[in-house]
Amino acid sequence: MAELPFRTVCILGPGLLGGSIALAVRRAMPDCELRLWARREQPLQLARNLGIEHTYTNARQACSGAQLIILATPIGAFEELSRSILPAIDKNAIVTDVGSVKAYVHRTTGAMLTDRGRKFIGSHPMAGTEKQGMENAFAALLQGATVVVTNPHGVTEADTARLEQFWQQLGCSTYRMEPANHDRTVARISHMPHIVAGLAARNATVGETQTADLQRLASSGYRDTTRVSSGSAHMWADILWENDVAVREILHRCVDDLHQLVSLLENQDKEGVRAWLEEAKATREIILKLSD
Amino acid sequence: MAELPFRTVCILGPGLLGGSIALAVRRAMPDCELRLWARREQPLQLARNLGIEHTYTNARQACSGAQLIILATPIGAFEELSRSILPAIDKNAIVTDVGSVKAYVHRTTGAMLTDRGRKFIGSHPMAGTEKQGMENAFAALLQGATVVVTNPHGVTEADTARLEQFWQQLGCSTYRMEPANHDRTVARISHMPHIVAGLAARNATVGETQTADLQRLASSGYRDTTRVSSGSAHMWADILWENDVAVREILHRCVDDLHQLVSLLENQDKEGVRAWLEEAKATREIILKLSD
Repeated sequence: MAELPFRTVCILGPGLLGGSIALAVRRAMPDCELRLWARREQPLQLARNLGIEHTYTNARQACSGAQLIILATPIGAFEELSRSILPAIDKNAIVTDVGSVKAYVHRTTGAMLTDRGRKFIGSHPMAGTEKQGMENAFAALLQGATVVVTNPHGVTEADTARLEQFWQQLGCSTYRMEPANHDRTVARISHMPHIVAGLAARNATVGETQTADLQRLASSGYRDTTRVSSGSAHMWADILWENDVAVREILHRCVDDLHQLVSLLENQDKEGVRAWLEEAKATREIILKLSD
Repeated sequence: MAELPFRTVCILGPGLLGGSIALAVRRAMPDCELRLWARREQPLQLARNLGIEHTYTNARQACSGAQLIILATPIGAFEELSRSILPAIDKNAIVTDVGSVKAYVHRTTGAMLTDRGRKFIGSHPMAGTEKQGMENAFAALLQGATVVVTNPHGVTEADTARLEQFWQQLGCSTYRMEPANHDRTVARISHMPHIVAGLAARNATVGETQTADLQRLASSGYRDTTRVSSGSAHMWADILWENDVAVREILHRCVDDLHQLVSLLENQDKEGVRAWLEEAKATREIILKLSD
């Protein structure tokens, strides 16, 4: 078995992602001392039932002596939580997060911790489902996922490589990016699709149709296109908020593009409609590398 | 075993849906004489390898003496094909189709056949994948699907019930609707989501991002939200065309709604963004009956 990159790992926040990381650590690194903190007892009880022994409702106690601390609460809570645990963060420990936006996190939490002599590197595991909470967590969620690693505060190469090794031992592949480029990229590949899924979900009921008819005719197309919109509205409002410049830029393009399709239909330009659909298909195939 | 509603069934067009119906008939009704017609030999060869013996490249021969004739080509080909087989259609036979729009089909093909003393009832199985062709057909595609049945030409109740029985014996449930109401409903539950999926697929690459980054970060969210946009652009351009009034109505609403979300972000109305997302989630749960 590969050497453990960190002997003591503390995860703050046993939501879907934090809980899944905990279960993956439990499985892939049985010798690692794994600690889990939550504000409430209920998810910790669930975690203990799943074999995670060291659970805490006191965050400072949880972090004391940990070599890796992972912020896995909603992004909006990172900074306050980090301030509250500050005295317990070892100067040699690495702090990371699993938030979906990176420039905002580095500008706030990352800068604060760096100013106070702590090591902060950002992480973003590209993994999730539309479900929430420890009750929906599972170790395999991380399997095969790309984890973006962002290091604008200049933490050493050795420490960065150690964090990457941690993710790799959980079955992930790592990918370094600049925070701003990460945010522009996820605005396009994740945040915009989330909004568009919501658009399809919301607008199915407008106008003169019966809910019973829509229910009866709904099939895999509606189900899959709208799937991600069943995610937490609270969490996603935070994400869009903290990446609003990149999100607004891409949404303006989407409004124009949808308008263009309506014009093609209005102008009876059937060939134009076909070409619009063809380009959607071709772009999807490139991004998901589906072409032969 | 239940009595066969039709002893001889002829399917015209072994695409994904026609081919899957053929395989389902083969499995659920082994005593039924199943015939399959295609313009080209290649899908018929494939069908024969899958146990479908009676294959034809002459449509009149295929339909001669059939008790049920199913039009499963692209919708745009229905009328010409129906005219070409007209002399071979028995006056007691039922002709149906599996097209995704119904008012257009009844206004053209249905009216033509009815004028010439033939019985035409519309069908729309709410089943499909983003793939195409006999090579992707499978009997289970129909399992559990709703089949909308439309009968504006007043074919007898006995004949309509017989067609419904056919679909039910293939594992489907049937649902009668008026053609215009069907078209408004599928515009919302199927055609609009298809366009919106294309919107997400197309716009991921606009602006300053690298394709390699998008490929690396693409995950299940992008994959599922855009899945249906990998469907045939040619077939979908036809569908949008033939349901353009209902589609344009709902798309105008979508343009306005997307614009509204952009305004909420621009006005820094975080609560408004959350409420927008919450309504998407709630609507999805109602339509897919996911609520507890």
